[in-house]
Amino acid sequence: MSFDRVTIVGPGLIGGSLGLALKAKKLVGHVVGVGRREASLRAALAVGAIDSWTLDLAKGVQEADWVVLATRVGLVCELGIRAIPAMKSGAILSDVGSTKAEIVAMIEPHVRPDVHFVAMHPLAGSERRGVEAANAALFAGSVCVLTPTPRSNVKSLETVSAVWRALGAQVATMSPAAHDLILAQVSHLPHLTAACLLSAIGDDALPYGAGGLRSATRIAAGDPELWMDIFRSNRRNLLETIERLEKVLEDVRGFLSVGDDAALLAMLKSAQQKRQSLEAGAPEAQTPRTLPKAARPRGRKGR
Amino acid sequence: MSFDRVTIVGPGLIGGSLGLALKAKKLVGHVVGVGRREASLRAALAVGAIDSWTLDLAKGVQEADWVVLATRVGLVCELGIRAIPAMKSGAILSDVGSTKAEIVAMIEPHVRPDVHFVAMHPLAGSERRGVEAANAALFAGSVCVLTPTPRSNVKSLETVSAVWRALGAQVATMSPAAHDLILAQVSHLPHLTAACLLSAIGDDALPYGAGGLRSATRIAAGDPELWMDIFRSNRRNLLETIERLEKVLEDVRGFLSVGDDAALLAMLKSAQQKRQSLEAGAPEAQTPRTLPKAARPRGRKGR
Repeated sequence: MSFDRVTIVGPGLIGGSLGLALKAKKLVGHVVGVGRREASLRAALAVGAIDSWTLDLAKGVQEADWVVLATRVGLVCELGIRAIPAMKSGAILSDVGSTKAEIVAMIEPHVRPDVHFVAMHPLAGSERRGVEAANAALFAGSVCVLTPTPRSNVKSLETVSAVWRALGAQVATMSPAAHDLILAQVSHLPHLTAACLLSAIGDDALPYGAGGLRSATRIAAGDPELWMDIFRSNRRNLLETIERLEKVLEDVRGFLSVGDDAALLAMLKSAQQKRQSLEAGAPEAQTPRTLPKAARPRGRKGR
Repeated sequence: MSFDRVTIVGPGLIGGSLGLALKAKKLVGHVVGVGRREASLRAALAVGAIDSWTLDLAKGVQEADWVVLATRVGLVCELGIRAIPAMKSGAILSDVGSTKAEIVAMIEPHVRPDVHFVAMHPLAGSERRGVEAANAALFAGSVCVLTPTPRSNVKSLETVSAVWRALGAQVATMSPAAHDLILAQVSHLPHLTAACLLSAIGDDALPYGAGGLRSATRIAAGDPELWMDIFRSNRRNLLETIERLEKVLEDVRGFLSVGDDAALLAMLKSAQQKRQSLEAGAPEAQTPRTLPKAARPRGRKGR
């Protein structure tokens, strides 16, 4: 489950960290970086995330055993469709997009029978961007979600799973639709809520924000354009989760209005328990958690 | 502006940190701890936050130059009203409650003419509780809000301000009502929102929460009973800020529904800017920020 040659299209925070991690674990012979800006690629080379680079997508992917699209969501489909005709027979194509249904639906019809598409989403990252923030340990203790379809090649899926496990990640497998509904809840809604919270705070009040507010809104420092891509791509699920949050806020406002302290306290206690189940600590202190049974990787047993 | 004797009623995270900080800066001769549970007071003594302790409130406060009520909000008024008759003439009474209007309105009528009440709120803390989490540097780089009324004694206000500045805090002065409206926005609403966010996340999705969700909901790990006190005490302002957030969420849902990406992007960009103005970093990395002019301490100029 090592690769002679991996090409990372867009070696930024995630792609760059993948390059560093693969090299640190000696899972790859050579990493090629492909991008649009020479400066970014030179930066990726300087930190050791890639071994060589090119601005030419077709040239960059043609010898790769694994091509990983690590650009922002809005560019993944176009680059994937352009890369496929240039890839060598038997190679694996993956992306690390934060949404999966749209990307899989767009790319899959273009996949050649001899190229294997394994859509994935490593649940790691930060509000920082660029290869300067990349690090080889980013995925240790994290979860990587793979979203195969009936067309997916089982052997390639297993290869990619094994690589992520070798990088210290837990692998979960589910449908693209299930992924997007889950991520709307645990990632996209929290991001949007942090931004809304800041919008609701008056400019006079903001300077009095302390550690709690800083922590609660840290993710809102993330790149707005990048998040717009994600929100656009997961619009329907996000709308549903916003409505769910609005319902909870309406309930809470009701409890406060009528003085139903018992109901409010019960909600706070339940939220505290949910928070405790997330296991406190910085991302680097993450330990693998128990994932719901349905989401455990397929094909691990009895093979 | 040092004290011979300070009594801290409820030496937990905030009260204990105050004891440690006063002692570290040599601003106090002796710190007495008053509490309801012997074990907590022994713990405070063990970490050096207090020098002696008693379970008897009257006995504990009678020789103090500064009595600081550092219990949860729901107990502050009762303890303050019970402490006043036992205090010595010329002493200062303060509290560190997270809400101010109710506390000031309840305590002020009971204050003797020869005892000076200085209500305050150090904007520091964490989701942790108890004197075990206390540290002498908790207030360095933080802001402490004082909320005087026309009845407040200017000299005592200045003494308390000077002490907080000596502990490394910036001092802001405003009315109890202004404080409560600001804190509803930068503290109480974020806490409630973090809890609501967790409520809106399905149990199946929760295990996929990564660093972003952990950070966004960290404050929801705080003690529910303690927060209920705060919400109860600042009910009206909190209701207003919840409505404000609901309005923002409704707008955002509208932008998403009709595909008004420009409006959503503008909101995200404005939130990102607001977040940047909060200055990223852990609480211990806080540097004093520029507070709005109206909130700067009174009585510093021309005295």
